[in-house]
Amino acid sequence: MNVHWPTVAIVGVGLIGGSIGRGLRARNLARRVIGVGRSRASLDAARRTGAVTETALDLAAVAEADLVVVATGVKSIPGLLDEIDRSIRPGTLLTDAGSTKVSIVAAWEKRRKSRRGRFVGSHPLAGSHRRGPEAADGELFTGRVAVVTPAAATPPADVEAVGEFWSALGATVFVMSPREHDRIVAATSHAPHVMAAAIAAATAPAALPFTAGGWRDTTRIAAGDAELWADILLDNAGPLGAALGRVAAAAERILAAVEAGDRRRLVTLLSRAKDARDALGS
Amino acid sequence: MNVHWPTVAIVGVGLIGGSIGRGLRARNLARRVIGVGRSRASLDAARRTGAVTETALDLAAVAEADLVVVATGVKSIPGLLDEIDRSIRPGTLLTDAGSTKVSIVAAWEKRRKSRRGRFVGSHPLAGSHRRGPEAADGELFTGRVAVVTPAAATPPADVEAVGEFWSALGATVFVMSPREHDRIVAATSHAPHVMAAAIAAATAPAALPFTAGGWRDTTRIAAGDAELWADILLDNAGPLGAALGRVAAAAERILAAVEAGDRRRLVTLLSRAKDARDALGS
Repeated sequence: MNVHWPTVAIVGVGLIGGSIGRGLRARNLARRVIGVGRSRASLDAARRTGAVTETALDLAAVAEADLVVVATGVKSIPGLLDEIDRSIRPGTLLTDAGSTKVSIVAAWEKRRKSRRGRFVGSHPLAGSHRRGPEAADGELFTGRVAVVTPAAATPPADVEAVGEFWSALGATVFVMSPREHDRIVAATSHAPHVMAAAIAAATAPAALPFTAGGWRDTTRIAAGDAELWADILLDNAGPLGAALGRVAAAAERILAAVEAGDRRRLVTLLSRAKDARDALGS
Repeated sequence: MNVHWPTVAIVGVGLIGGSIGRGLRARNLARRVIGVGRSRASLDAARRTGAVTETALDLAAVAEADLVVVATGVKSIPGLLDEIDRSIRPGTLLTDAGSTKVSIVAAWEKRRKSRRGRFVGSHPLAGSHRRGPEAADGELFTGRVAVVTPAAATPPADVEAVGEFWSALGATVFVMSPREHDRIVAATSHAPHVMAAAIAAATAPAALPFTAGGWRDTTRIAAGDAELWADILLDNAGPLGAALGRVAAAAERILAAVEAGDRRRLVTLLSRAKDARDALGS
């Protein structure tokens, strides 16, 4: 593959940022990968593990980039994009990897006319309950989905350019509006996270020795970082409430069948859930 | 290890029965392992994979056993125990591996005085969403918990004998009443199962391409057999309702913090859940 982006700056070199860097370097997609972060230790780890070729504590380092990717927690992304936009060369392509899109894209669009950069939001649906550049994996996005979420005014060529970036890292790219994205991930990611946390929190410590594979699988994502997840959930409250309402209604239907002793209905409900799950493989 | 039980009969040679057989044989705990079942194909698979040394379609084969283990779905266990009790030699030790204990133990105890066998209920907390003797694993119980649930009238020597059985298969044995057991597994197994099914059922088919590891983990057990699980849930309706109520309350607390924009409270709730989850490892 050609070098598409001679110099890429990655702001935030945790699991996602580090994996982007490793993927870019393994595929020879960039000559220079500048890791930008606030923690010297994380930056050093990112360089040591081959995720970046150079590091910077100062955001002004993005001035040398052809493409800037912001891979930090959702709460900090709008402010970072504003800052980055003041340092980049005019026309530089920007994207992010945040788990929500409506507020991030809206914050950029509000001042679209005065922007130097060309920003298109995106969200790679890949992650882990592990964190940090040490957990980074250049193949993290291979075979996974990356959603690119243009605003109404985003030029199609910019959508394509950001789509190409994720595609080059091995992802299958879907394009949809920020609103549609946030509605979908409320159901596929945020509501499951809340339920995993609720199951873990509702289990008495004395009962923990009596958990087996089912409890472990169901609650695994509850081990995710509480601060990062708090910001994601807070940024998607409306769709999250709706998605949790649908989960609660589905659980109530199952419990109602149990309490009515209606085996036939219960088997039907559990079979439908099984069909949805089986469609995805293990 | 000595041969503890020269001849063991396993009624039901699926994942659990097959794993018991393989464990017994690998550890040289039994000379003969008789697999009893209704399906010729399953019995043949159990013999082919080394889970049993001989097979029988007729339950009367238990007459030769020193120990009989019933490893079928919970619904059929009380009736099978009745039938088995008519065929065994007086004094034979019986146990089961059913996921619920109150109704199974109560059904046996109701006619305790006229029984030939010595039954003590048990439940190994090990399983898989996979099924059948092909998925059997002689190490399935190693390092896992097996709960032994005597009735008030059960002689301590019988509790010990059944505890020794699971211990010999590598499990850590806990003894508790059937009621305590059912209350605990409602929280650690049955409520998580219902929530996994509810999340899977509440996710629109169009959203499935946008699921990632979190959704997959959270819903994995929803792929379990619908008929088997229907019978488990139906047999534990009261404790299940209480456990689901606690999960729903925990989810509502999280959503309330999200909707109030109370980040501090939300981080506290998610951190508590994370602590519970982290206590168990991945």
